[in-house]
Amino acid sequence: MSTGFFGDIARVKYEGPESTNPLAYRHYDPDEMVLGKRMEDHLRFAVAYWHSFTWPGGDPFGGQTFERPWFGDTMELAKHKADVAFEMFSALGTPYYCFHDADVRPEGDTLKESIARLDEIADYFAGKMEKTGTKLLWGTANLFSNRRYMAGAATNPDPDVFAYAAATVKSCIDVTKRLGGENYVLWGGREGYETLLNTDLSRELDQMGRFLSMVVDYKHRIGFKGAILIEPKPQEPTKHQYDFDVATVYGFLKRYGLENEVKVNIEQGHAILAGHSFEHELALANALGIFGSIDMNRNDYQSGWDTDQFPNNVPEMALAYYQILLAGGFTTGGTNFDAKLRRQSLDPEDLLVAHIGGIDCCARGLKAAARMIEDKALSGPLAERYAGWDEAEAEAMLSSKRTLEDISARVLSEGIEPQPRSGRQEWLENVVNRYV
Amino acid sequence: MSTGFFGDIARVKYEGPESTNPLAYRHYDPDEMVLGKRMEDHLRFAVAYWHSFTWPGGDPFGGQTFERPWFGDTMELAKHKADVAFEMFSALGTPYYCFHDADVRPEGDTLKESIARLDEIADYFAGKMEKTGTKLLWGTANLFSNRRYMAGAATNPDPDVFAYAAATVKSCIDVTKRLGGENYVLWGGREGYETLLNTDLSRELDQMGRFLSMVVDYKHRIGFKGAILIEPKPQEPTKHQYDFDVATVYGFLKRYGLENEVKVNIEQGHAILAGHSFEHELALANALGIFGSIDMNRNDYQSGWDTDQFPNNVPEMALAYYQILLAGGFTTGGTNFDAKLRRQSLDPEDLLVAHIGGIDCCARGLKAAARMIEDKALSGPLAERYAGWDEAEAEAMLSSKRTLEDISARVLSEGIEPQPRSGRQEWLENVVNRYV
Amino acid sequence: MSTGFFGDIARVKYEGPESTNPLAYRHYDPDEMVLGKRMEDHLRFAVAYWHSFTWPGGDPFGGQTFERPWFGDTMELAKHKADVAFEMFSALGTPYYCFHDADVRPEGDTLKESIARLDEIADYFAGKMEKTGTKLLWGTANLFSNRRYMAGAATNPDPDVFAYAAATVKSCIDVTKRLGGENYVLWGGREGYETLLNTDLSRELDQMGRFLSMVVDYKHRIGFKGAILIEPKPQEPTKHQYDFDVATVYGFLKRYGLENEVKVNIEQGHAILAGHSFEHELALANALGIFGSIDMNRNDYQSGWDTDQFPNNVPEMALAYYQILLAGGFTTGGTNFDAKLRRQSLDPEDLLVAHIGGIDCCARGLKAAARMIEDKALSGPLAERYAGWDEAEAEAMLSSKRTLEDISARVLSEGIEPQPRSGRQEWLENVVNRYV
Amino acid sequence: MSTGFFGDIARVKYEGPESTNPLAYRHYDPDEMVLGKRMEDHLRFAVAYWHSFTWPGGDPFGGQTFERPWFGDTMELAKHKADVAFEMFSALGTPYYCFHDADVRPEGDTLKESIARLDEIADYFAGKMEKTGTKLLWGTANLFSNRRYMAGAATNPDPDVFAYAAATVKSCIDVTKRLGGENYVLWGGREGYETLLNTDLSRELDQMGRFLSMVVDYKHRIGFKGAILIEPKPQEPTKHQYDFDVATVYGFLKRYGLENEVKVNIEQGHAILAGHSFEHELALANALGIFGSIDMNRNDYQSGWDTDQFPNNVPEMALAYYQILLAGGFTTGGTNFDAKLRRQSLDPEDLLVAHIGGIDCCARGLKAAARMIEDKALSGPLAERYAGWDEAEAEAMLSSKRTLEDISARVLSEGIEPQPRSGRQEWLENVVNRYV
Repeated sequence: MSTGFFGDIARVKYEGPESTNPLAYRHYDPDEMVLGKRMEDHLRFAVAYWHSFTWPGGDPFGGQTFERPWFGDTMELAKHKADVAFEMFSALGTPYYCFHDADVRPEGDTLKESIARLDEIADYFAGKMEKTGTKLLWGTANLFSNRRYMAGAATNPDPDVFAYAAATVKSCIDVTKRLGGENYVLWGGREGYETLLNTDLSRELDQMGRFLSMVVDYKHRIGFKGAILIEPKPQEPTKHQYDFDVATVYGFLKRYGLENEVKVNIEQGHAILAGHSFEHELALANALGIFGSIDMNRNDYQSGWDTDQFPNNVPEMALAYYQILLAGGFTTGGTNFDAKLRRQSLDPEDLLVAHIGGIDCCARGLKAAARMIEDKALSGPLAERYAGWDEAEAEAMLSSKRTLEDISARVLSEGIEPQPRSGRQEWLENVVNRYV
Repeated sequence: MSTGFFGDIARVKYEGPESTNPLAYRHYDPDEMVLGKRMEDHLRFAVAYWHSFTWPGGDPFGGQTFERPWFGDTMELAKHKADVAFEMFSALGTPYYCFHDADVRPEGDTLKESIARLDEIADYFAGKMEKTGTKLLWGTANLFSNRRYMAGAATNPDPDVFAYAAATVKSCIDVTKRLGGENYVLWGGREGYETLLNTDLSRELDQMGRFLSMVVDYKHRIGFKGAILIEPKPQEPTKHQYDFDVATVYGFLKRYGLENEVKVNIEQGHAILAGHSFEHELALANALGIFGSIDMNRNDYQSGWDTDQFPNNVPEMALAYYQILLAGGFTTGGTNFDAKLRRQSLDPEDLLVAHIGGIDCCARGLKAAARMIEDKALSGPLAERYAGWDEAEAEAMLSSKRTLEDISARVLSEGIEPQPRSGRQEWLENVVNRYV
Repeated sequence: MSTGFFGDIARVKYEGPESTNPLAYRHYDPDEMVLGKRMEDHLRFAVAYWHSFTWPGGDPFGGQTFERPWFGDTMELAKHKADVAFEMFSALGTPYYCFHDADVRPEGDTLKESIARLDEIADYFAGKMEKTGTKLLWGTANLFSNRRYMAGAATNPDPDVFAYAAATVKSCIDVTKRLGGENYVLWGGREGYETLLNTDLSRELDQMGRFLSMVVDYKHRIGFKGAILIEPKPQEPTKHQYDFDVATVYGFLKRYGLENEVKVNIEQGHAILAGHSFEHELALANALGIFGSIDMNRNDYQSGWDTDQFPNNVPEMALAYYQILLAGGFTTGGTNFDAKLRRQSLDPEDLLVAHIGGIDCCARGLKAAARMIEDKALSGPLAERYAGWDEAEAEAMLSSKRTLEDISARVLSEGIEPQPRSGRQEWLENVVNRYV
Repeated sequence: MSTGFFGDIARVKYEGPESTNPLAYRHYDPDEMVLGKRMEDHLRFAVAYWHSFTWPGGDPFGGQTFERPWFGDTMELAKHKADVAFEMFSALGTPYYCFHDADVRPEGDTLKESIARLDEIADYFAGKMEKTGTKLLWGTANLFSNRRYMAGAATNPDPDVFAYAAATVKSCIDVTKRLGGENYVLWGGREGYETLLNTDLSRELDQMGRFLSMVVDYKHRIGFKGAILIEPKPQEPTKHQYDFDVATVYGFLKRYGLENEVKVNIEQGHAILAGHSFEHELALANALGIFGSIDMNRNDYQSGWDTDQFPNNVPEMALAYYQILLAGGFTTGGTNFDAKLRRQSLDPEDLLVAHIGGIDCCARGLKAAARMIEDKALSGPLAERYAGWDEAEAEAMLSSKRTLEDISARVLSEGIEPQPRSGRQEWLENVVNRYV
């Protein structure tokens, strides 16, 4: 039975590229085979509960713009919100969703009450998941909105906050496991600082390392099979966040011996804020062996904050999915739309339309990436460019069989004077434009 | 005997804060004791050969503005350049200098000839160093200007470039050792990419790791006692450089098992380009145990490229030296002015004046930082802020004695509801302003 | 009678640079004469009602952190807020304050009710102003927080919003005049766009021009003697704001014939967001004849949004006041602290301490700037640099007495080949550092 | 007869979207009709002489990478360069080219000699233009590379530099007119400052205004029918350039009474550096009545300097050409590729391939934009959004028939409480994605 929020809503169908129906897919056909796999199984779309169902439309200079019938602080409203959310998941046909504890239940007067409410909502979700077939891509704890976390959760100067955060995360992992979540995510929005003047950076890194180690231990102890994912972001809300980018997270994991236990959830917008392209972060995570999942959105290139817009630039998305396919595609991860409507997009239909547009762009990006892989459009020239490294002496240099002295002696005796060769960037860009 | 370049040049003296002599120090008195150590021994100033003596004043839209009598490609001019350089080192009383091979000798037709020229100049330097007492803070190889390196040195797709770079670095370490250099620096200006389309990022990281391992091995083999330093920079000239920032370098070192062998040379301007404050990079390097040395300059906050200006903002410099003092001060490292004159600063006197201004600012910064340390102006409130972590249960959480379940149980049973306390940022900023 | 909010609060006094009392001025002595004028009359400090008394401490990822006894939506609480505000103005000895309508009264159910409430509060303010001697630097209307303005006020696609905004501005000008306000400010936080796809930029500029013309006409009609000020900002909350920077506002004023009627209120943080230094915007406004007033704060150079921090970098502030003194100082304008506490600065004392620190920094900046002017430290060299333009032929070129052909003929016949002269930037920076 | 540089070069032909020939157009068919006009006449492509034929491939950290047989300082080489350039223009079929004086002739020992050389090359060009049918889109003077201009051309503190620049511009306008140039461009790369400390901003603006007025007067006097275009850029090489962006240029033109005489040449990369999207600058120039021509390239969104890359993102280009079509298309202006090869793109073929890729992207962008216009895909919803302004009372407000009091009275009496309507941004973005 419909909640009525979206009016007379029907399942969004694939109608092909010529369709002008704003509520149809033009490029996303879940069952279409791409590189031998269904598109749905490649893309593994998830809807983010927070942006779509709890964000009121505010910004630093203005308040609520969205008027949703489920806004409010009761469990009844929380269930109504869930009704609408699962209705939308079903309509879109997105196989997954993601949530924070704070998205789905009103905060209680005590942690105990908050956890009880989370458990109650989890039961409600379980019923809906069974009925609709929607699955949980990941769960997470909101350790940043409440004022208790203003100076950090794991990295708080107050050990009681660390403890409170630990208890909260435990409850969220429990629920994530119960609901069959395929991953558990930690985004350290307050794990950082506003000023070094009041911050013991070294101590806080140790706190964060210890916290994460406890999470990993707990996961194993309870037999949670999902991946633990960290989500890098350089700043905002804090001036500096410890999980700055993929490279920083990798160093952190190595430092605390967690590089085989934890992977990254990479967000386009966060990559941009850190001064990277999205495909850079994806390629690096793959190189370092910690690629996990993605938050698909886009940041405005002219804005210096996290705009979390629905993605719409297909050429950029093709390059992102190209890297994901190079990484072997998703295992436990997926494509989570961590994107929010513009605050002027007031209508229920805007919520559908935004997801449909994003999904179609992802589908176009994936298909273009897959064709580039099938054609070896980029990998062929790449192999050729590095072909010199396949030769014996080159391999010897790389594999510890040669010292600096050996190499120096050879260069001097052979009179090696290397000549540069064209990098052919423009040609490669033209090649990509044949596919997008 | 004077070269005449600076006219009738005399040793720059300390004349105290009231002096208006543009060629005197107003704050830098090398023998003044600060925290029980001579200021000269704290600051360990070095002049950068490249900016001061080889840069012609060009920018992407204009050519040479400086007309120096030593510009040209002969060994005779190279020696004349050395005469002027050491004349300036002596006049400024800066105890150290730094150089790239390409700064000090004209490139030869072959690598063999280039190395022979470097050796000849090194002998010439040795004489001057002995005569003037100037020491070598660090040497380095220029692996970025010549077109052979356009696609990388260690990370080049062509193994012959890797080999050529290896042979070049060997020759520069040899010379650095011979001249008593206290460090050897690697800045990977071309170790990165212009486009991922033609780049095998994973393979290139391995090449870079192998290269650095060979350098470390060689250092030990020849008994070079100086530190090996990597200089992080996020981009420019390339779109992305693998040594993005301190955190990235740390992860790289950990990956290749080099974190106890290699430290970082941190540049203010590079920190800014990476989206960090200088003091952040310093604090982080200290926390990670890889702090080595600094390049002291400043970047224009409104420009998106590396402006390498002489430093002039004392409050910022005080915060930088505060972090350096927290790290225990320099051991092998020092304060290298990796700063260049504005290209309109044509006169020989500009070169002196720029260094004098920078040196005085560093001295003011150091003294302010030292007073803050003596007064425990910041460390006192900091200790108080984290005092909770000294308690037994807090230590237990941090030292693996508690699991997530333990902590959760305690939080719930004790009904812990932490209350936030003021971070007092503005008060701390006011405190700092009492010192600068 | 004290409200008790600040405890046992006393008037903040000048105690001189050696004082370590956090609640005393170390540099600001209102009666100290600077360039023949009392410091208070130079600086004309104002406190911003909104940040200090209405902002709850939220950010895009977290809610309220401040707990103020006056938070709430009743007129009684609004008056209590006023009691505390004027208590703080008196304690600080700041001669001015500034407010938006929305800061001082709860919004009514209708515009009529909102205006009635504003009038009631204005009466309450009038009493307090008389009693405390605090004056109104400027009033303004909040045309950005309420959802009705989400797509603009004057530039809304809906003419009813334009009308509603007009009625609102009228009521605020009326109140500003009644309270003896010395200026009326318009900040167009929603006058811009999120996407050009739904925006008729040309039409919206005309709407904004018309709106401003009506405001100017009204001011004259009612005999309001204060200045009308526009506050430039490039973006945030919108993607693009029409009042991007000083130069943009100037072009806008010229286009609608308002350049002699309207001036600018320049904010440090907005200058930075637009890619300018603060002193640039000040110098440009002076050159264009539209300098009015300033919002003194600072933005974090590593953050891409408006951080509105209390200012603390004295060298930068000295350069700002230097430009203000060059512009002849403030007439109707002043130094408004459009700065907010960090959201972790929870304590009442933080509010005092932040203002005291900012005031002291301004005082140091002003005094340094004044000494530079007295010494002609910068103006002397500047006059010398441009001295060539005082010669007859140069003046002829500049004053329309020469054509391109005339000049070309002279250059060729005289064989003019100009030689560059040093810009001496580093020397000038050192000179400034003698004063700060 | 071929120069041989490009080997056995043939005219680049349109082969349709399925072609994989890297030297064929896949989307650009000059004769294809778009909105009733040939595509060639819409796009009016021009090749930039400087980047393609004079740039040696250097960057701030590296020297020449390109080895071109025409590099050198003789007139003979300058003519060989011209042979190759026109060979490429013919091969590409681009109807236009653009040049600076410094691109086409070696600088003489005196200005007289430089002008004589320019005249000689102009004759050589005239012959080639007649033979090949290639036309001149615009000429310009290089007033930024030579050290004489290091502190500005029109805005130099030395009036002799102003005079020298004036004589130089005269010679370039003369040549542009002689060659039938359709525009004359001024880019003020050195019209700005490095530091306000040595700059009289107000005086320099007047110098620049006077200079431009003389140019306009001269143009009329000699009967040059082309447009005078200013090219905005915010910074680089200088810290601040006076022609910051379109809005700034407009204000400048208004100030000196030139807004009907001068238009803008807008570059994508410069728009990005100024914090704008390209389409913003185009839309604004159209709204202000000063749209002239474009430099089509792209800047790297993660780099803070002017990367001048060949364009390749079709969705962005579609939005740009959409704005150009809204402005009525080009009159004297055109699409100039102010784009340079990546410095690793060493091969002659790279030069062709880069232009072919850029041209094809423009063609795709134009066709998408044209279809959006034909379908009223965006303009229809836009008209509907602003429809309220067509009503009588709204028009009265906008056309000076209503005062603030009138409007206020009406709002209060009618109890107007406007309700926001969805801005539908995501839907509009999806619509655009149907076309690109």
